[in-house]
Amino acid sequence: MPATLMNQRDLEFMLYELFDTEALINRQRYQDHDRQTFNEVINTAKTIAEKYFLPIRQKLDIEQPTFDGKNVHIIPELKTAIDAVNESGIGSATSDYDVGGMQLPPIIASAANAYLSVAGGVGMGYNMLTTANANLLEAHGSQQLIDTWVKPMREGRFMGTMAMTEPGSGSGLADLTTKAVKAEDGTYRIKGNKIFISGGDHNLSENIVHLVLARLQGAPRGVKGISLFVVPKFLLNEDGSIGEDNEVALAGLFHKMGGRAQTSTALSFGEKNGSVGYLVGEENCGLKYMFHMMNEARIMVGTSGAVLAVAGYQYSVDYAKNRPQGRLPSCKDPLSPMVNIIEHADVKRMLLAQKAIAEGAMSLVLYGTQLSDDERTADTPEQRQYAHTLLDFLTPIIKTWPSEYGPKANSYAIQVLGGHGYINEHPVEMFYRDNRLNPIHEGTTGIQSLDLLTRKVPMNQMKGYQATLDEMAKTIEQALQYESLQEYSTQLTEAIATLKKTTDAALTAMATNNIDLALANSVKYLELFGHVIIAWLWLKQSIVVTRALAQGPHKEDELFYKGKLQAAQYFYRYELPKISLWAKLVTSTDSTSYDMQADWF
Amino acid sequence: MPATLMNQRDLEFMLYELFDTEALINRQRYQDHDRQTFNEVINTAKTIAEKYFLPIRQKLDIEQPTFDGKNVHIIPELKTAIDAVNESGIGSATSDYDVGGMQLPPIIASAANAYLSVAGGVGMGYNMLTTANANLLEAHGSQQLIDTWVKPMREGRFMGTMAMTEPGSGSGLADLTTKAVKAEDGTYRIKGNKIFISGGDHNLSENIVHLVLARLQGAPRGVKGISLFVVPKFLLNEDGSIGEDNEVALAGLFHKMGGRAQTSTALSFGEKNGSVGYLVGEENCGLKYMFHMMNEARIMVGTSGAVLAVAGYQYSVDYAKNRPQGRLPSCKDPLSPMVNIIEHADVKRMLLAQKAIAEGAMSLVLYGTQLSDDERTADTPEQRQYAHTLLDFLTPIIKTWPSEYGPKANSYAIQVLGGHGYINEHPVEMFYRDNRLNPIHEGTTGIQSLDLLTRKVPMNQMKGYQATLDEMAKTIEQALQYESLQEYSTQLTEAIATLKKTTDAALTAMATNNIDLALANSVKYLELFGHVIIAWLWLKQSIVVTRALAQGPHKEDELFYKGKLQAAQYFYRYELPKISLWAKLVTSTDSTSYDMQADWF
Repeated sequence: MPATLMNQRDLEFMLYELFDTEALINRQRYQDHDRQTFNEVINTAKTIAEKYFLPIRQKLDIEQPTFDGKNVHIIPELKTAIDAVNESGIGSATSDYDVGGMQLPPIIASAANAYLSVAGGVGMGYNMLTTANANLLEAHGSQQLIDTWVKPMREGRFMGTMAMTEPGSGSGLADLTTKAVKAEDGTYRIKGNKIFISGGDHNLSENIVHLVLARLQGAPRGVKGISLFVVPKFLLNEDGSIGEDNEVALAGLFHKMGGRAQTSTALSFGEKNGSVGYLVGEENCGLKYMFHMMNEARIMVGTSGAVLAVAGYQYSVDYAKNRPQGRLPSCKDPLSPMVNIIEHADVKRMLLAQKAIAEGAMSLVLYGTQLSDDERTADTPEQRQYAHTLLDFLTPIIKTWPSEYGPKANSYAIQVLGGHGYINEHPVEMFYRDNRLNPIHEGTTGIQSLDLLTRKVPMNQMKGYQATLDEMAKTIEQALQYESLQEYSTQLTEAIATLKKTTDAALTAMATNNIDLALANSVKYLELFGHVIIAWLWLKQSIVVTRALAQGPHKEDELFYKGKLQAAQYFYRYELPKISLWAKLVTSTDSTSYDMQADWF
Repeated sequence: MPATLMNQRDLEFMLYELFDTEALINRQRYQDHDRQTFNEVINTAKTIAEKYFLPIRQKLDIEQPTFDGKNVHIIPELKTAIDAVNESGIGSATSDYDVGGMQLPPIIASAANAYLSVAGGVGMGYNMLTTANANLLEAHGSQQLIDTWVKPMREGRFMGTMAMTEPGSGSGLADLTTKAVKAEDGTYRIKGNKIFISGGDHNLSENIVHLVLARLQGAPRGVKGISLFVVPKFLLNEDGSIGEDNEVALAGLFHKMGGRAQTSTALSFGEKNGSVGYLVGEENCGLKYMFHMMNEARIMVGTSGAVLAVAGYQYSVDYAKNRPQGRLPSCKDPLSPMVNIIEHADVKRMLLAQKAIAEGAMSLVLYGTQLSDDERTADTPEQRQYAHTLLDFLTPIIKTWPSEYGPKANSYAIQVLGGHGYINEHPVEMFYRDNRLNPIHEGTTGIQSLDLLTRKVPMNQMKGYQATLDEMAKTIEQALQYESLQEYSTQLTEAIATLKKTTDAALTAMATNNIDLALANSVKYLELFGHVIIAWLWLKQSIVVTRALAQGPHKEDELFYKGKLQAAQYFYRYELPKISLWAKLVTSTDSTSYDMQADWF
């Protein structure tokens, strides 16, 4: 059975029916493109995915990177595959022409990367981090930093990382202790230890460009005293060639449950004289810049959660269509032929659950990706500002919902395959392992929930919150034109009322109550908000589908559209009602967790 | 940080406060025992666990069994550890004295095994399957079969398996095709292929006793034409020594996501002349006998789900108590010291969630284990029958609830550790992988839900169902004596009303509606029932605790009891309300999944 990487029909639906991606060619930046060139890029990615990544996907999982005390070894096929991506230009698909990019809309790059991610597992993580690193430097670095480091990263010669976490402070960046001292030549000397640095060492590129958070002597305590530095693995000679070792030592590799092709490293900076670092932007403003990368990384993480959910869904649908087993309860004749398991209602339920999660999550991350484009390339400053407001607000949800629900979808994929899903002859157990990282890195779910409730909701007189409600109201207004969508419109209207009531209660509790207690159920608030957003996006999808069905589509499209409506129904019947339970916990400022004492455990 | 395997205080609570295990010594079978001997056995298990299993737990996970084409190799330390178990007598703790057993109550054996399971991961699986195999033969085999095969299994010289699944029929036993032909000497010749046979080959014992389901020529189609055979790896000589190879060939090992120390094998029986098989009981009655073992195996699976949940909970509590990170939201001073993460409300929530699942599940599986004892050793035939009725009814719930919620608990354990939970320096990611098998083997969750709704509920004029309701009613009556338990009593009373209403609706739908549609939400029914049962057991625990607190316990016990009440509160506030959503899907005979068509996916 050939593995279906992505559902191409659904990707087309997302790009060209749900989001009006074709209209982007009216923007000056994209004027050289059209739907055909968009599709060519996606197809190129698909070809590379099938040719270079898919054959090594399992090998990348089984043969983890090793460290011989001096060098890291990764199976050489990965470099070949990554080179193919770089040669195709997809590695810097969204960059400006003048740095060698293709000036493609991010949403197209995201669709292309989805194929590579599914086929290459986390092998693609190296590229994605490199892109995010380069984007940060382009936005906040001096021209010299850009010229020196961004160009080779765009070309794929160098790769990049973000180095934040330290052994003593994971999520608590305020407590990081890596030191930076200014040298006479204007550069800095960096000393300290970092852990969980993805792609922190490998043999895939000539050099590695670390973006390191560190603290200058005498800098304010807490997050306001953090600066950001470029610290390369190797210094460069004046002609740009690779020079001296910069005292960035690999202290060890971590062995992860999933995502194994991407090294996770403990790095020691500057044990002898200090690693040379180049300041990015201004001193003590490092966290602000890093958030540029982190926000991008958070959308990447959400996208990974969504794409892995799609991957497991596609695989288990294929399997269920081809695996005969048992008979329906209505059939008592043991002589009758077995049915394919896709005929069993409970298998359909588990596939629908995956479809509702996977396609709901994909629509969310592509929406976020489009917003990140709009905030830079939309026609008017107002539109750009509005997109920024929405994206800034939605980032914790875009990061978290696919991360939390993606692994649940993958668990269903395993269950559909039964015992076969638990062994490595099929990739679904790998998707399940790979996806489990997503609720952890780039800010755990707990961190995201605090960000949402304490920063994103109140920020700018609740402008982001209000804009989100406005967007949902618009969709409901459209949906009310269709009789068949009445049920969902009503349900979403009620859900939004619940959301508002819950938000008000939470903000009131934060203002009047013990803040630790008021925030004790922040994760439940985030879950609630996430479910409302996904319900909204399913209603958006249902409107598009209802319109299309009214026009009498050809048979194959009709089947596709009916599946969409059924998945929307699943979400509204099986998932959305959960919000009432979460709302109750938040509005009542439930103190169960808060009251619990350490010595009662 | 030394790992706490189990919470000893909680185990004592379960055995001696929640269940009146000490009273068992009044039964004739257990008259030689007392609480001290019970505890000695548990302590012996703990010592073996810490000395032999814990040091190799990770090695067992990393160094998977290998097959060189001829023999299976497992790290030799496992045999040493298993030998230690056998030498201690714990391997056959519950067996009769006259077969070398210790005649211990199963609930004590279960507590002892919990230590071994947590420390030894699945290394203990070999023993447990062997015990279940021997128990089946003792119940249904001829004296000759018992003399020949059970004794060496009880001594640990032989090990046992159950061989049901075939490549073409996983859950659908009706379609199995392994053939048996009667030979002139009264034995049978077996030919066929089996997959996913746990412990199907290894180098841990002198011989392997397979219990194989096969079909005689001319037997009725379906499950009524299945017979059960003992098929040893090696035949025995007349003096009982190991004889000829019996054509049981290892076709391959499966590579599982977890539970890696226990081989999962593809076996080929009798490729040349047929493997010699010895009929168990009567022809065509094999499935009935196998269900003896399967019912026991289902309680074992539930126990594994529960014990792994406890293991992850204990580990993450220890970690959270010792890991400083960040400050409370109420503290804005970056100069103040970091707090241990157990102080963060969201971490407490994730620990409480685990506690509610883990200790709820443990109480369920120990209750089931005690019922399995009562059905054989309770004082009167009526009591024995009543215990049988309850256990028979509850088996799908005992199997499923801990299996489904255990992995969720383990996911929380990972999240508490953050990035550290995702790497193999800590065992929580292994628990998560190990536990994911439990909703699959010995009957998937889907299969269990059909068993519950189509067999267990209607069976014997709903006697098992009614007995379960009666038991819950008794508990509520007791709880009503305590003012502080009023909230839970009311909530459980309402939950039981919901359960009844849902049951009636489901049975009506099954009788009057399309049966495939009527059963489409059977898993939701099972989830609902499981949650009500766990809520009941938490109320039972709360009664014991409330009584104990009224007696002014010493400080340490007081803390323990307060934690219990908080976990109960967590379950009643965060979990039990979910049943209303599931009830709605079942009572409305929701057709979302049923209506979905294969070609809409």
